[in-house]
Amino acid sequence: MSVVRIGIIGMGNIGKFHADYLLAGKVKRAQLVAACSTSPQKLESFKEKGVKIWGDAATLIRSKEVDAVIVATPHYQHTALGIAAIEAGVHLMVEKPISAHKADAERLIGTAKAHPNVKFAAMFQMRTEPRYAKIRKLIQDGELGQIIRINWVNTDWFRSDAYYTSGGWRATWKGEGGGVLINQCLHNLDMLQWLCGMPARVRGFCQLGRFHEIEVEDNVTVYLEWPNGATGVFISSTGELPGTNRFEICGTRGKIVLEKDTLTFTRNEVAADAWNKTSKIGFARPDVWQINIPITNADAPHAVLMQSFVDSILDGAPLSCPGEEGLGSIELANVMLYSSLTGQTVNLPMDGAAYEKKLQELIAGSRVQKKVVEVSTEDFTKSFTR
Amino acid sequence: MSVVRIGIIGMGNIGKFHADYLLAGKVKRAQLVAACSTSPQKLESFKEKGVKIWGDAATLIRSKEVDAVIVATPHYQHTALGIAAIEAGVHLMVEKPISAHKADAERLIGTAKAHPNVKFAAMFQMRTEPRYAKIRKLIQDGELGQIIRINWVNTDWFRSDAYYTSGGWRATWKGEGGGVLINQCLHNLDMLQWLCGMPARVRGFCQLGRFHEIEVEDNVTVYLEWPNGATGVFISSTGELPGTNRFEICGTRGKIVLEKDTLTFTRNEVAADAWNKTSKIGFARPDVWQINIPITNADAPHAVLMQSFVDSILDGAPLSCPGEEGLGSIELANVMLYSSLTGQTVNLPMDGAAYEKKLQELIAGSRVQKKVVEVSTEDFTKSFTR
Repeated sequence: MSVVRIGIIGMGNIGKFHADYLLAGKVKRAQLVAACSTSPQKLESFKEKGVKIWGDAATLIRSKEVDAVIVATPHYQHTALGIAAIEAGVHLMVEKPISAHKADAERLIGTAKAHPNVKFAAMFQMRTEPRYAKIRKLIQDGELGQIIRINWVNTDWFRSDAYYTSGGWRATWKGEGGGVLINQCLHNLDMLQWLCGMPARVRGFCQLGRFHEIEVEDNVTVYLEWPNGATGVFISSTGELPGTNRFEICGTRGKIVLEKDTLTFTRNEVAADAWNKTSKIGFARPDVWQINIPITNADAPHAVLMQSFVDSILDGAPLSCPGEEGLGSIELANVMLYSSLTGQTVNLPMDGAAYEKKLQELIAGSRVQKKVVEVSTEDFTKSFTR
Repeated sequence: MSVVRIGIIGMGNIGKFHADYLLAGKVKRAQLVAACSTSPQKLESFKEKGVKIWGDAATLIRSKEVDAVIVATPHYQHTALGIAAIEAGVHLMVEKPISAHKADAERLIGTAKAHPNVKFAAMFQMRTEPRYAKIRKLIQDGELGQIIRINWVNTDWFRSDAYYTSGGWRATWKGEGGGVLINQCLHNLDMLQWLCGMPARVRGFCQLGRFHEIEVEDNVTVYLEWPNGATGVFISSTGELPGTNRFEICGTRGKIVLEKDTLTFTRNEVAADAWNKTSKIGFARPDVWQINIPITNADAPHAVLMQSFVDSILDGAPLSCPGEEGLGSIELANVMLYSSLTGQTVNLPMDGAAYEKKLQELIAGSRVQKKVVEVSTEDFTKSFTR
């Protein structure tokens, strides 16, 4: 194989976005050959571009006409379609979240592990952003010392009521399995665990439909505690303007702050734990260095991750984001909600089956009747953040 | 009466500080006439300054030689000494916290209410700082709209182990009744409720002796929820370097951020709630104004508050900080700890008697044996923040 023949399943906003850069040749040795949707009108434009259109995903997967698929459907279909692809020997790139909930994610990961020759990748493109990669390196190199506290205010996800009425599946237990956690800030949750590791316990305080007439959470405050005693909060909302995106990570050797497009590192000349033991003056503090760390924006981050997927298929190169690493973010989204719904602090790893049961109850109890109003003039790429 | 004769009870760091500016004539129509301490060595320097020294507070209070006292003893003595002063008709300025816990504070306030002719004031000098007064005005004038979220990272309270060994009463249940909440950041808790009002419920996550060998809390994360649904977190620590002091208050009309010596207001041209209903574009946002609000530092804030106390005694002017307004901060400090110790969300107003019982249990169970090491070179004023 010298070129990977790719099919996209699900031609909504993000599916079309992947199609566009593939058709524009942004990914080397990749060819978009198939577009699949149950909505014929979403396929029309692809016919004239020479992309074969499909109405049924199972047929496409079994067709032998694709080497790989991108699953870009609503969340609940990720697991079944992903498993079908892997079992058919079709390489899989799955959009975030890898599944609608943890138990499903474990089913998908289990299938992938049973088929080691099939590549399984996840679309967490923020991992290609230099800002996060640099923070990760600072932590892994020990520059920050041991992490002692984090504070991520991640509330620049404002959505108007018009957004929520623009898709019947949006912000419903049945359609998405949650709100701002699983939809808007799942990439941030991926970064949280990619940079700081998974917490040991979580207490969430989610408000359901506080700002919008929806049944899922649109305002979230979460307390996290890591195995080493480090503490933190993660805060998100779709009801706040102008919103904030400020990520503070404090370690024994200093403090990192990422806010908007600025990354700063305030470094202690003497680490906090050493200073604590040796300083004879109660109020005194060590001098600090004020460091501005230069960052640039990743150029076409989705295409970069897709290139890694293609290179892995063709050359056996390691994946930038293996699919199983998508487990952390979905577990965080689930546990934050589960803790809120049960009013209890939850230890990790969480019980995926218990959460799945809770989610089924929420779906069964849903009374949502949405009147869908299409928002035709929307520029979807405005929803991307770094 | 044309001059208020003032006695100070408790001549530790803060008592000496009050004495210094009174002796320097910073408060008009006030004369420091008495200094009282059970430690004779803390009184020596006052003799030569013409201030009469006293070894017993009850005798001083009954002496008729003072019109007013400043109670600057360890926390647990505030209530009994305050009640004794008020019942003797001696005007009372009490250091923070007004009492060691809520039930005691209510006893003190009850006594004050029964003696309306005796002035009762509390030393919350941050209220004189323009930065907070300006935020308060923005909120009260409706410039911020309705508050929807706050985030106060208040961790620039680093204390070394040497600090904790410098006083036997420090950071013990018996000596202070708590740690960073009741000692270091009580002023911040006063500001929190002065600016945003009292929350309706609180869930605290306090870590006891995480950074230091102490029995009380030295790292705190608290979730707060207000009656209107507004949410927030308050975070503090004495183990972090360099520490952060960043207070973010988001309302429907914009966002205030106070960090270090900078106060900014990002104002929405259209309020969030109105935009939410009327915007037809899901991801769109209103334009914002970036406003820098000029602030200066209060000049001698303690003396300003003391002047208000003296003016109130002599002229009947209203107090800048009436003593009963000290209830909010002690209730917040108590409820944050009580929630942590019981592992439950606590509704406000909290049950002061239940907390007092819990505190008595902690005192009874204490195993602390401190070796006190005096830190003689300390500059106490370095502990002041704005």
